[in-house]
This record gives sequence, C-alpha cells and structure tokens, in this order.
Amino acid sequence: MIKVGVVGGTGYTGVELLRLLALHPQASIEVITSRSDAGVRVADIYPSLRQHYPELSFEQPDLNTLRRCDVVFFATPHGVAHGLAGELLDAGLRVIDLSADFRLRDADEWAKWYGQAHGAPALLSEAVYGLPERARKQIQRARLIAVPGCYPTAVQLGLMPLFEKGLIESQGIIADCKSGVSGAGRSAKVGSLFCEAGESMKAYSVGSHRHHPEITQGLSQMAGESVSLTFVPHLTPMIRGIHATLYVTLKETALSLSSADLQAVFESRYQNEAFVDVMPWESCPETRSVRGANLCRIAVHRPAGGKLVIVLAVIDNLVKGASGQGVQNMNIMFGLKETLGLESAGLIP
Amino acid sequence: MIKVGVVGGTGYTGVELLRLLALHPQASIEVITSRSDAGVRVADIYPSLRQHYPELSFEQPDLNTLRRCDVVFFATPHGVAHGLAGELLDAGLRVIDLSADFRLRDADEWAKWYGQAHGAPALLSEAVYGLPERARKQIQRARLIAVPGCYPTAVQLGLMPLFEKGLIESQGIIADCKSGVSGAGRSAKVGSLFCEAGESMKAYSVGSHRHHPEITQGLSQMAGESVSLTFVPHLTPMIRGIHATLYVTLKETALSLSSADLQAVFESRYQNEAFVDVMPWESCPETRSVRGANLCRIAVHRPAGGKLVIVLAVIDNLVKGASGQGVQNMNIMFGLKETLGLESAGLIP
Amino acid sequence: MIKVGVVGGTGYTGVELLRLLALHPQASIEVITSRSDAGVRVADIYPSLRQHYPELSFEQPDLNTLRRCDVVFFATPHGVAHGLAGELLDAGLRVIDLSADFRLRDADEWAKWYGQAHGAPALLSEAVYGLPERARKQIQRARLIAVPGCYPTAVQLGLMPLFEKGLIESQGIIADCKSGVSGAGRSAKVGSLFCEAGESMKAYSVGSHRHHPEITQGLSQMAGESVSLTFVPHLTPMIRGIHATLYVTLKETALSLSSADLQAVFESRYQNEAFVDVMPWESCPETRSVRGANLCRIAVHRPAGGKLVIVLAVIDNLVKGASGQGVQNMNIMFGLKETLGLESAGLIP
Amino acid sequence: MIKVGVVGGTGYTGVELLRLLALHPQASIEVITSRSDAGVRVADIYPSLRQHYPELSFEQPDLNTLRRCDVVFFATPHGVAHGLAGELLDAGLRVIDLSADFRLRDADEWAKWYGQAHGAPALLSEAVYGLPERARKQIQRARLIAVPGCYPTAVQLGLMPLFEKGLIESQGIIADCKSGVSGAGRSAKVGSLFCEAGESMKAYSVGSHRHHPEITQGLSQMAGESVSLTFVPHLTPMIRGIHATLYVTLKETALSLSSADLQAVFESRYQNEAFVDVMPWESCPETRSVRGANLCRIAVHRPAGGKLVIVLAVIDNLVKGASGQGVQNMNIMFGLKETLGLESAGLIP
Repeated sequence: MIKVGVVGGTGYTGVELLRLLALHPQASIEVITSRSDAGVRVADIYPSLRQHYPELSFEQPDLNTLRRCDVVFFATPHGVAHGLAGELLDAGLRVIDLSADFRLRDADEWAKWYGQAHGAPALLSEAVYGLPERARKQIQRARLIAVPGCYPTAVQLGLMPLFEKGLIESQGIIADCKSGVSGAGRSAKVGSLFCEAGESMKAYSVGSHRHHPEITQGLSQMAGESVSLTFVPHLTPMIRGIHATLYVTLKETALSLSSADLQAVFESRYQNEAFVDVMPWESCPETRSVRGANLCRIAVHRPAGGKLVIVLAVIDNLVKGASGQGVQNMNIMFGLKETLGLESAGLIP
Repeated sequence: MIKVGVVGGTGYTGVELLRLLALHPQASIEVITSRSDAGVRVADIYPSLRQHYPELSFEQPDLNTLRRCDVVFFATPHGVAHGLAGELLDAGLRVIDLSADFRLRDADEWAKWYGQAHGAPALLSEAVYGLPERARKQIQRARLIAVPGCYPTAVQLGLMPLFEKGLIESQGIIADCKSGVSGAGRSAKVGSLFCEAGESMKAYSVGSHRHHPEITQGLSQMAGESVSLTFVPHLTPMIRGIHATLYVTLKETALSLSSADLQAVFESRYQNEAFVDVMPWESCPETRSVRGANLCRIAVHRPAGGKLVIVLAVIDNLVKGASGQGVQNMNIMFGLKETLGLESAGLIP
Repeated sequence: MIKVGVVGGTGYTGVELLRLLALHPQASIEVITSRSDAGVRVADIYPSLRQHYPELSFEQPDLNTLRRCDVVFFATPHGVAHGLAGELLDAGLRVIDLSADFRLRDADEWAKWYGQAHGAPALLSEAVYGLPERARKQIQRARLIAVPGCYPTAVQLGLMPLFEKGLIESQGIIADCKSGVSGAGRSAKVGSLFCEAGESMKAYSVGSHRHHPEITQGLSQMAGESVSLTFVPHLTPMIRGIHATLYVTLKETALSLSSADLQAVFESRYQNEAFVDVMPWESCPETRSVRGANLCRIAVHRPAGGKLVIVLAVIDNLVKGASGQGVQNMNIMFGLKETLGLESAGLIP
Repeated sequence: MIKVGVVGGTGYTGVELLRLLALHPQASIEVITSRSDAGVRVADIYPSLRQHYPELSFEQPDLNTLRRCDVVFFATPHGVAHGLAGELLDAGLRVIDLSADFRLRDADEWAKWYGQAHGAPALLSEAVYGLPERARKQIQRARLIAVPGCYPTAVQLGLMPLFEKGLIESQGIIADCKSGVSGAGRSAKVGSLFCEAGESMKAYSVGSHRHHPEITQGLSQMAGESVSLTFVPHLTPMIRGIHATLYVTLKETALSLSSADLQAVFESRYQNEAFVDVMPWESCPETRSVRGANLCRIAVHRPAGGKLVIVLAVIDNLVKGASGQGVQNMNIMFGLKETLGLESAGLIP
C-alpha cells in the first residue's frame, strides 16, 4: 500500500485527490496538511468525505510529518512546492506537483509569467512533465513530476497526433477554450461568486494567461519547432469541465489526406491509451461526459474538407486536468496498473 | 426631479437601485458613495450601467457630499446607517435604509441579534417600517424608513390577510423559505462561490436567522398578539428569488370558511395593491415570474380542506425584497405615483 | 458474477444503474432493453459510458431476451413492470422494480393515485418494499423488490428513528421537500427545459403528489398507527439531489428528552448502517455532499428546545433515491457485501 | 399608438416582445396569435405578464384578426411568415419577421439550408435585412423586415467596422460563438432539458449551422467581396446570452495601425449608435452585462500587436438578437425615437 501525503489539501484539487484515492486499492492517505486548517478534521470541511476519512485531520506541512509517506502530492498555489520539494526528494520520497512550479523548463520564463523568482531551479533538470500519453517512460523513472495544467492537458492531447505526424502548420494555432469555474480554485474572490460567474460567459486573460507558455512549450516540443499560439480562455457557468476548440491548418503536404486518414491518425495514436477517447469523426463531445472521470474525449472536424482542421477536446479540469492525472502519474511511477482508482464513468446527468 | 443619494453603492442592492432609478422619470442619482471604491467610475465596476451612468463616480460617504440630495438610500451592511442617518435627517434630508438598522422596534432586541449595541436608539421612535401594503399612511409622513428584509417581506405579505382578519392561530407558524444566493450579498465568501453554492441545496441558520425577530415583530403586530414562528431558510442555487412556503393553522372559528372565502380574503385585501398579485386558488408561483420585478405573487392552498393552510409567496429578493421596495417607499414619501419606475415585468426566460 | 438485465435503460435511473454496475465487482450487465431504441448502442446515447460498455446495445424487452439474466431491474414508467414481472418470476429470475408499480400494498389505492387499474395485484403479497434500513431481512428472502421512491426514501429515513421509538405525534407531520430536476426524468417536457426550470424555484403537486400515499404507508407502518402528512414538493434548479425538511412534534412523554438524547436516538438507530450518516446535532447537510453517492445524510434540530423537531435529510435522488438503492437491494438479495459497487464519495465540487 | 400584432406568441421571442412592448409608450399589443393555444389567456401561460396583459388572449392567426394592426411581428418557426406576410402587406400592414424566412437574399440558398422550397420568393426583393446599424435608411422605408438572427447580429456588429474600412482579410475568418440555451427555443426537446444542457458545454452544428449563410451574406456585403467563414457555435449552460469570439487577420496595409487606431475605428463607427457599446481596448465583456437589454457590447484585442485581431461581442440573444432588435426596427419604420421601450439596463446580478 503506497503511503500518500497531500500538501494543501483544502482546495479543489486536494479534495479531488481524497475522493479518488478513497477508492484506490493500493494507495491510502497517510498525511494531509494545511497551514490554515491544521488540527481540523477533513470531514468537517468536506462532509462528502465523512465516510471515507472519519478520523483524518489536517497537519502542519513539514518534513517530519511528511517523511512517513512514499509520495507527496502538492495541491498548492504556485511557489509552495519550490520550497519543500527538494527536502522531500532528499529524504527519498517522490513528489507529484499539481501546481505550476515545475512545468516550465526555463526558470527565467517561469519568473516572467509568475512574477517572482523561481524557487528551485536546480530541480528543473530532473522534473518530468507528467503527460503520460507523451512521456510515459520518463514518468516511470521520475522522482519529481510536474502535472500539466488543465488547459494545457486538453490542448496538447487534442493536437499531439497532428504535430507528431507533422501534418499541421506550427503558426496560427488558435485555442479557444472554455472552463468551468472550479478552475479558479476555492479561494474567496468576487469574480468566482455564484452571482458573478453564474448565468454569464466571458473571455479573460486574453493573450496573457499563465498556461500560454506551458502550452507553447509542449506543442513546440511535439512539433520539433517553435509554434505560435493564440490562446483565449473563457469562463463558463458550470462547475467542472474544459472544452477546447482548436483551430489548426493542414500543411500543403497533408491536404490530400481524407477524413478517414485524419481520423485514423488520432485513433492509432491513442489506441492503447485508456484515458483518451477518440470519438467518431465530426462528433461533438460534451464536457459532462467526462464529469468526475479521468478522460479526455476528442473529436475531429474538417469543414468542407478544407485546410482548416478543428479539434474538440474535453476534460474534467479537476480530474484529467489535475488530480486524476496526478494519480495516473503515481500509478505509472510505482509500477501499478495505470487505471487503478481511475475507472469511474462520467456522472450523467 | 428628486435628487437621490446612495450610500454603499457597490453591493447588489446598490446596483439594483441604480438599475431601477435609471428608468425613473422623476428621480435621478445625485451622489453615490463607497468608502473602498471612492474615485472609481460606477461603469467600471458595473459595465451593465455604462450607458446609463457614463460619468457617475463613487465618492466618500460624508454629510457634505450627501447634503445636496433630497433623499439618501443606505445599501450598506448593518451599523452604517446608525452612524449617518441622524445627521442627514438633521440636515433636512429623508433616509431610506435598506439595511437592518432600524427594522426592530426594540434596541435591546437589535443588539442581541446583531451582536453590537444599537447605534441610534433615539431615532427608533420615528423610524417607519416600510412595508407599504401595511403602513402606507405612516410612510407618507415619514422621514426615516426601515425597508423590510427580503424574507420578512415575503412572509408578512403572505400571512397579512389571514392575521388581519383573525383567521389563523398565532402559534405553530412554520416559514420554510428558499432564497437565491444574491441574498448573501456581493462579498467574497467561500460559501457564496459558484462551486460551493451551485448545484446544491441546504438549510442554514435554522432557528437563528436575523430575520426571525423582524418577522415575529411584524406578524405579532398584525395579529394583535405575540406569535410563535419556526423559520428555516434554505440556500438555493439561483441568483435571485425567494420562495416562502408558509404553514399556518385555521382557528376553529374559521374552519367553516370555503376555499372561495379564503381566496376572497386575499383578493380583497390586495385588490388595490399594484405590487401584490394574488394568483388563482391552489396555483404555484415561480420565483422567475418576478425576476427583476417589484412584485410579490401569492397563492393559497388548503390540502383536503383541512385546518392547515399553505401560503406560497414569491418575490425577487433584490427588488420587492430590497431596492424596489425602497423606491416604492420613496414614491410614497414624495407624493409620486407609487408605481413610477417599477413597472417592468419579470424577465422570463 | 450476477447477470443483470435492465428494462428501460434510456432514462436517468437506467443510465445510473449502468454507471454504478460498471464498477461492481460481482455483477455485470447482460441485457439492456429499450422498446424505442432497440438496436442502438448504449454508448451512442450515453457517450459517458463509451469506455465501460463499448459493445452493449439495447434490445427488445421480452422474456426470451431477459431469461439469461439472474435479476432484472425495471427502470420504466409505471405500468410496465406490472406486465412483465410475473413472467420473469415464473422463469426463476428475481425482479427489482425502480418504478412505482409494487410500492403500495393496496391495489385500489394504487389505482386511485395512478389513474389506471393495477396490472398485477396477485404479486403484491410477495413484493417487498425495499428500504434496507427497515426491511433487510425480508429483502434477503425476496424475489420481487419495490424500490422506494426518491422523496419517500428521504422522508422515511429522516423520521424512522423517531417513529420506531414512539417519540413523535402521528398527526401534523409536514414534509417540505426540494428536488433537483432529474426527478422529472429524461422525457422531453416544457417544464423540464433548462430555460423553464433554471434560475427559479416553485412548489408543485401540493397535496396531490403520487409519493404521498407511499410515504404515508411507510410512516404509518413505522408508527404502528395511521399518520397524517402534509407533503409539499418543490422543483429546485439543480440536476441531482433531494433536500427534505421535516417538521414533527414530540409527544408529551418525549418532551423531557435532551438534545443529546435525541441525537443518540438517531445515532444508535443507524450505527450499523453504511448508507445513513447522522451528522452532528443541528448541522445542515448539503445535497451536493451526496452527489453520485448512495447515502442519506441526516441532521436533527430542535429550535429553542421546544416540542417541534426538525429533521433535515438529503439524498441523491438517482442513487439512494433510485438506482443505488436498487443495487443495495440486489447485494442483499444475493448475499453479497451490501456496499459492493456503492463506495464512491460524493462529487464535490 | 401603434397597434401591434404578434404571430406565434408562445415562444421565447414572443414573450420577450410582450415584455418589451409592455413598457413602450407608443405601441401596444392589439392581437396575439397561437394556433395551438387559441383561446388561452397570455397570463395563464406566462404568469410574469399577469399585471401587464390581464385580459389578452391568444387568437387564431388569420388575416381578419390581424387586419386591425399597424404592424405584425412573426415570432414563428421558419416557413410560417412565408405564408402570411404577403397578405398582410397587401392589406397595408407592415411586417417584422423574427424568423429566418426573409433573411437570405437568394431563395435557392434558403431552400438548401432550410430543406424546403422558399414560400414567398416574390417578396425577397423588397425585404430589408433589419440590422439598423447597417441599414437604417432602408428600414425607414421598409414594409417588410427580416430581423437578423442572434449569432449573425453579434458577428456582424463585431466585424462591421473592420470590413467597412477594408482593414481585414476576407478569408480565414473564425467565429467561435457561445450561446445560452434559450437560443434553442421553448419546444420540448431532450437536448434542451435542464439535466442535459446544464453543467456542460459542447459545440454543435460545426460547419452546418443555418446562420452560416446569413453571416456570410452580411459580411460579404460589408466587405464588398465574398468572405470565407468558419463558424462554430457552442451550447453554454446559461439561459440568455451570446458571446462571439471573432478571429480575423489584418491586411498587410493595416498592420501599421496602432491599438489606438483600431479602437478609434470601432468608436467612431458606433459613436452615434445607442445600442452598440464599444468597451475599452482589450477589455472582456460579460454576457450578463446585456441581460434583458437591447445592446451589443464589443471589445477589441490584438495579442502582442500582431496581425491577428480578436473581437469579443456579446448580446442577449432574445433582445438585441431577436425581439429587441425587432422593436428597434419598428421604432425606425414608424419614425419614433429609436430607443423607445428599449432603455432598460442589463439585469445584474
């Protein structure tokens, strides 16, 4: 039984980890920490978990407490994992970071987007970007995982087959993305209030969202060249879910591909992936079809058979976009069956 | 043209006042204040009002600024109106307080429920509880109005005809009420987040809500004797709206009343009221039917012709439950047609 | 491995059965039927189940098809199980009916409320009302289960401890209940549209809901005398969830009970029940805390220590209020561990 | 006082017309028709209008009934206005059609997209496409108005300044649009149910939506050349609102424009338009800011000063996207002040 620690367990990715691990047959929560809620029982903050963690309480996040774990998840704001990850690795633990701390390869780039110096640049060389469908082998050997962000997961899985095959232009990519409100976290902000975010739609952070460099880094690595991306996130009045609508242009050399060819590119790329579902050609996935599930559903469109290809990709931002993907990484790191604890179907209706 | 001041204009009752007064033919906003946002344009915080108040900015709340108004609305947390109302009255202005500061007749009772001493007990004797359907004449002469709370408006209008006619028992009243989330205001609290209040229903403050003494005071006054009330508010995943489900018992002497008799009691009581709509016998009003409208819709039920009567009453908590009722009071105080600026129909769908 | 058949699998209780059974280690779907969608793949109607049932298709509902099952669930409108249940029982299968067909003991009462003659009165004597917390032993031996309705589950579990102990009056019970829209099923009705049911609250079927006689029958059986109930259901703008707010009166003989005594009545009654959670005294359960989970959470209030007791009970109407309770019954009937396949925590946020 | 008839008054655009005209000082409803609900009172179907239309009832839609009107609005499914419009025009009435019947200039194109022959091709030459900001003069003289569709209104207003000035390429336009569920109308369809459309996001009709040719026709006319458009509509879990995210490419000759220049293009184009609001450069309009209001809010972005320009445009699909724009057309046709009856601010929260 793998002993799991969770640092920063009061946010939405923290509680989602607890929910998923409650059903995991080979992992159990050993420690959960929260600086502000130390001493409080998990069940008092999250009554949904009363049956599963009747006695578990939040502790102070420190090395001594966490030392008894095999692996520690960080479900914290950025900057926190920088401070603790090194110590934990030195103590022989593995670290799975759900925050943005180790996602960008370049410490200066990180500093620019996050407005503070990178707190652990020495660890960057060994940090593995934990997108299992792209980097499964590195994950198997990794001690430190940077779990991809929610938008980056949807966009990268949506475009990976096309880039890996060299079928699309690296310039002029448009990612028009729509996210549920849980992406903004559980902190008390006016913009996340029911009466502010409900019954309304808006774009935000156009051209300046922190996931922009992460997506660009990932796509460039897949493309083998620098890509240029326009990324427009939108706030959508739903709790969970990301819908990525991706507009890309076929290269001249790929224009002769038929619909069946394009569909086959996706199906063959993901045929052995348990957590990516290629839907029928030109279908329209709904975010609710993956609610609570560790799954990315993808459908491909090509209006009028032209050079523009539209990829629709949906995930649950808290599962395949965060905690579920974290557990998937853990399963891979520890040599477990990759789907353990992640078999649930989407909650519909 | 009546010159209106609004103290505390950044909350939901404040912006609702602005929306309503934008269409009022005989009143206009002269001053709006906000301690935290002084200097900021209203249109920058509320883009919905860009066309109607392109230049209006928040000012500091003080007497000099407000002196140029005829009437000042308080759309503030409790305690604020205590501090300023006296000065404004002395300066010859009238005051319409949307907060709870002057609703309870008894300063000690107020102190008990609000956890602080009453800040202006000397003003209580002249404060008028501004439920126009009950106290229109006093409102006409008033200088200081305490606008009823949202729950108290729905419950009192729902039961007033029965109490005034002496038809129901004063004991064992149950008010099971459901409110939209805007009732909790625009402050950043975890419990009001989209992801906390959405897709869920819960009771709260059972037996301890601050509207309890206000309702009891009002009903007792109508009944001519002390009433006993059980009041259970529930948080409902919608932005606006209150649905009061009221359970009362007919007196022995009233058991012989027919359905038609009971319905007539309500219809005759409210036949001249523009803002109370008695629906057909045993119908079910929807809160959305009054969304954005200054209206209370009421329907009466009597299951199996027994001694229990159920009254269903719906309002928009921000309109008839707050700002709209405030404007209605203003119209009465200034001798205007009572419906001015309040004619809009509910926004459906 | 238990072979399960589902008749009427396209509605919400049908798809919920599929979702739950997908994770059940000792049961699997053998047949699923739908008269209107025979031949269609389940995954085409419910993409959320593409990974779990890639090949399963709807078949015509007839004995020959269903004969290869061990147990058949009916997830059908009322009247359908009447026609088929007898044949299935004769063929040696067991039947778990999620519809209302066998819930009322009295065929005439059923006919009165459902507006048609009872289609299988001969089966009533052996049908067991499948509320496991009340009738576990009968369920173990049963061939035909009538799974309780959603409202009846919440109301009966909320009041059972008080009635069984004889602590409350049998008259004057008020059940003010709030349900999510999925309770109305997946049929295309104007009243269930997003733009009709969204952002609004209303009562419906006051005094005339079909769950009324079912609740009365159950409570009377617990009380050992005929109870009188006022039941007011409300439509709430959320997908899943029932919140029952129950008002009952302590008997004179019970007035001396302390809060701790009352709380102990509930805790001891349910201490061995995996699917009933007694929360701390005077807390307020949220429906979302049981979203997707087979659980009833209960909290007890007694305002001002008076004779009125308020019980708050929440369930997910599709799980503990329907399909989950059906699986719980199946587990009991087949001698399995009662919690198999039902261990998931509520989906929060 | 203009006498207004409404054909097809039971849908959402019909009830929205009633709501708007209830406050119009120079127009009143003379006749409202509904084939299915003839004889029923409007207030019985729409209790929100009980105060405003206490006696109005639906009538059969025929010439004799409608003859007493000055103008008739069609709020009907496509095909209905084809059958009646000619007769009404011959009888000297004016017609404002909210349906798609006269939007496309080419009868064959219409037949192709709507799957049936055009029913009144002879009227096409005089029908005016009622986008007032583009065709005010023609509207003044028109007898027959085709009110633009909801998506087309948002997209055309968003791009009109750029096309009229010749600043953007006519190829490669992407309109990623998000609509509330009321765009699907009030008919009972499974896909529009609360439990299907709620808490989820999906694209639909990718490349095949009927508004595609309408948008293309309008943009081509503005551009003076044939444009090519990719239009991807998405269903969003909110009742009202359209958010259009528009991606266009500056021509080489326009690349030297500064941000201020681009902003000025929009501001000067719309400076005299009461119902188009150009927001500050690179801001993000929310759909709720126009809820219930006849307004299109627009904001312009240019990420990194490149050749791609992003225009964000929001409307309420039932107001500026349908009924409000219809009233705006009526005001223009009858020489009234264009804003009459359309002054309300957006309902926030």
